[in-house]
Amino acid sequence: MTGRVTLVGAGPGNAGLLTLHGLRALQQADVIVADRLGARSVLTQLAADGIALTAEVIDVGKLPGHHPVPQDGINALLVQLAREGRDVVRLKGGDPFVFGRGREEQLFCEAAGVPVDVVPGITSAIAVPAVAGIPLTHIGIATAFTVVTGHDQIEELPGGRDHTVVLLMGVTTLGHSAHVLAATRGVDCPVAIIEDGYGERQRVTIGTLGTIAGVAATRQVRSPAVIVIGDVVALGAREEPGSAPTRIAELAG
Amino acid sequence: MTGRVTLVGAGPGNAGLLTLHGLRALQQADVIVADRLGARSVLTQLAADGIALTAEVIDVGKLPGHHPVPQDGINALLVQLAREGRDVVRLKGGDPFVFGRGREEQLFCEAAGVPVDVVPGITSAIAVPAVAGIPLTHIGIATAFTVVTGHDQIEELPGGRDHTVVLLMGVTTLGHSAHVLAATRGVDCPVAIIEDGYGERQRVTIGTLGTIAGVAATRQVRSPAVIVIGDVVALGAREEPGSAPTRIAELAG
Ligand SMILES: C[S@@+](CC[C@H](N)C(=O)[O-])C[C@H]1O[C@@H](n2cnc3c(N)ncnc32)[C@H](O)[C@@H]1O
Ligand SMILES: C[S@@+](CC[C@H](N)C(=O)[O-])C[C@H]1O[C@@H](n2cnc3c(N)ncnc32)[C@H](O)[C@@H]1O
Repeated sequence: MTGRVTLVGAGPGNAGLLTLHGLRALQQADVIVADRLGARSVLTQLAADGIALTAEVIDVGKLPGHHPVPQDGINALLVQLAREGRDVVRLKGGDPFVFGRGREEQLFCEAAGVPVDVVPGITSAIAVPAVAGIPLTHIGIATAFTVVTGHDQIEELPGGRDHTVVLLMGVTTLGHSAHVLAATRGVDCPVAIIEDGYGERQRVTIGTLGTIAGVAATRQVRSPAVIVIGDVVALGAREEPGSAPTRIAELAG
Repeated sequence: MTGRVTLVGAGPGNAGLLTLHGLRALQQADVIVADRLGARSVLTQLAADGIALTAEVIDVGKLPGHHPVPQDGINALLVQLAREGRDVVRLKGGDPFVFGRGREEQLFCEAAGVPVDVVPGITSAIAVPAVAGIPLTHIGIATAFTVVTGHDQIEELPGGRDHTVVLLMGVTTLGHSAHVLAATRGVDCPVAIIEDGYGERQRVTIGTLGTIAGVAATRQVRSPAVIVIGDVVALGAREEPGSAPTRIAELAG
């Protein structure tokens, strides 16, 4: 009998931000196919917390700019494992449907006759700014937000500083993005970069559209990072020198 | 001694989409101040699943267009409860920082000397489309998404059908929104409305920017609903007559 595939959003990398459904799916799985970003470290944290999983773990190790297993290979692997009669969890960083190729994996499996369930996850686009005290909307300050990568559609982004922009995968193209957005938002529009949210290298860097590219270079900002642009940034925490534990990290234990 | 306040995102209304941190905070709380949309029904489901909470529950019952306790009253209540030395969970629908006034409550409490933790939640903006099989981004189809209410900034939204638009609180203003967006996206741009995602009245309604206002009126579409506009809609499920259980609802048990 064919197994099922469950796409599970692991959240931004803190096991406490896994959902109850997500945990249950992991506990019931025969095999877990895990991304490296976010997903892998959640499994490590669960083990450290004494939550034993019996499933085999296959690491498909997606890192930005470094894809050990190409997407076609992941798709084929999911179908193959399910056809062996195993129940598979496909554990993806953040939410599977936000720049996550989750629907693509789901459609591929379903076309091959493998049933798929989806368990949403906490997306880094929202939760990583939150760890720095930055809400994406705030009454009187921002009434819309756009999530985009550093590569696409930056030229066409609307609105002003009351329309928050969140850049994922935006570190290497930050100079260009900041330059383009300054045309509509002004060079003094606030920007925050949160590296490795909820992780050991968590660090917040603050600047403006005019200064941020220089500041990021000086501080050697690295991926993974979420970049937030707009007046909501001013509602957040000040810049931190390094990975100061935040309250949410403490809560994580 | 002053108690703490923990802002917890309850997710869109299915207890299985609560995070592990969120559940722990609820279990440790002395008192829970709960929104009605999403949050309240999560508490009911936990009780039905045999997860006993000892906390007192105070219902501040926010429904759209109907605010039994005004925001000022909620802010004051949180501070008052914490000053009584109680640990308070403020349970909010979806994510507290997405059209949720969470940061406002946090800043108010902190200004009054009450420490606040934040536990992000699964936002309806992403998870409710997912229940209908609609990803907000998809390779080759959409590389950006904007979340906005029906009331603001509709006139300034950028891009075409490859830039997904998600409307929250958008049912009553749908006619106007669809009309405005048709100028940049075309009258045949696909639209989906998902009412009461993960709830008993869950229902998916499909149309185009040209037809959706009429279809919604005929089907008597009601709030709460998430409206998704763009080519990603075509990747999702077909329209359903009523509250057909979806796989994720089954998984919820
Ligand atoms: C391919 S996208 C996947 C996004 C994921 N599906 C989500 O919903 O969070 C990867 C990007 O997400 C962001 N990201 C994910 N986890 C992060 C974290 N813990 N801290 C900072 N950025 C993170 C970074 O911008 C990274 O380049
Ligand atoms: C005040 S906003 C709060 C959003 C919330 N903070 C979140 O992140 O989901 C309320 C709106 O969210 C949407 N919403 C929340 N839960 C929903 C659900 N279960 N089904 C459909 N729409 C929902 C509706 O558009 C509703 O009018």
